[in-house]
Amino acid sequence: MNELQCGTSPIVGFRFSLHPMTDRFVEVIKGAMKETDTSAVWMHTDDVSTVIRGKQAHVFNVAKAITLHAAKTGVHVALNGTFSVGCPGDSAGDVYLDMPDELLNQDETKQYVSSQFALYPMNNPDYMSVIYREVDRAKERGVFNESMHYASGIHGDIHDVFDFYEEAFENARSDAHRHLVMTVSMSINSPSHEGSVKR
Amino acid sequence: MNELQCGTSPIVGFRFSLHPMTDRFVEVIKGAMKETDTSAVWMHTDDVSTVIRGKQAHVFNVAKAITLHAAKTGVHVALNGTFSVGCPGDSAGDVYLDMPDELLNQDETKQYVSSQFALYPMNNPDYMSVIYREVDRAKERGVFNESMHYASGIHGDIHDVFDFYEEAFENARSDAHRHLVMTVSMSINSPSHEGSVKR
Ligand SMILES: [Ca+2]
Repeated sequence: MNELQCGTSPIVGFRFSLHPMTDRFVEVIKGAMKETDTSAVWMHTDDVSTVIRGKQAHVFNVAKAITLHAAKTGVHVALNGTFSVGCPGDSAGDVYLDMPDELLNQDETKQYVSSQFALYPMNNPDYMSVIYREVDRAKERGVFNESMHYASGIHGDIHDVFDFYEEAFENARSDAHRHLVMTVSMSINSPSHEGSVKR
Repeated sequence: MNELQCGTSPIVGFRFSLHPMTDRFVEVIKGAMKETDTSAVWMHTDDVSTVIRGKQAHVFNVAKAITLHAAKTGVHVALNGTFSVGCPGDSAGDVYLDMPDELLNQDETKQYVSSQFALYPMNNPDYMSVIYREVDRAKERGVFNESMHYASGIHGDIHDVFDFYEEAFENARSDAHRHLVMTVSMSINSPSHEGSVKR
């Protein structure tokens, strides 16, 4: 029951699924995984999702690179996932905390993405103010889209959006409250975005 | 900032996206929505996701019906979503709490689904024991698949799986700890399931 033991490891995890809305979905997913350098993270794929674990910077770098590679096919793709820290489970991936800091994926191609996120700071009586603060940060960063039930809309260029997500995730946890969860849903190349000024 | 005010309304919400991995994704999504009776829930769709809100039983009934209708096309579909209660935001949907209890979608077609879920009982110092208990419940109900980082695997017939999710969601909250979040990722008609004994 490794998922039920919370610890103090700084290892960050992202359990996600990438959904290309095309008959060629296998090809798009495999291509995106192949074009991404995932050597800095521990990775495991099952029949529902993929999990990557390692240093925060590498986890966000790999998550963005896989998404961007899939996006560049032009296909409508969705990314759904949960970032977690402070509940490391077993220590199988802890060796990845010794990886060098240099980011291995550097593609700067611009890509509009529309997304939604929610922060869940666990066992923190003051969690609502943490959420307020990070939503305010999105507004300051120029990536806030709209308020909505149970989430906040975040959009813009994929690099700005992932930068915000990493910054929010970094800031929403503390030594006193280590267990943090952040869900992200992202839509790219959607027919709903055609002709949108948001592009 | 309606998402930032937690309250005591019993209204349940489910923010989700349905991803048919086919070029005909628009047709599959629209078909599933059209064939489902959604009159017992408040519903809003944006460019990333759809949110339904109402009585717990109706929210789970509608979520399952939309998923089952999409699954019956035979296409590989994924469902990703977050159930929430105790953080109702504005009261726009509260009128739906007056709906009759009778469930409006009754399709009993069997369908194998593989899924993963995570429970996030907010501001509850004892949250890990809540999670333990509900994972044990999955084992008792015969829908537990496997342990994994950050989630638990749940599979079986769609009706048994949704019954478990509703039961877990009902039991993981209390009057003392009203704000509960549950994420669910589901994969249906996946090529990964072909020939699997799990079917
Ligand atoms: Ca607490």
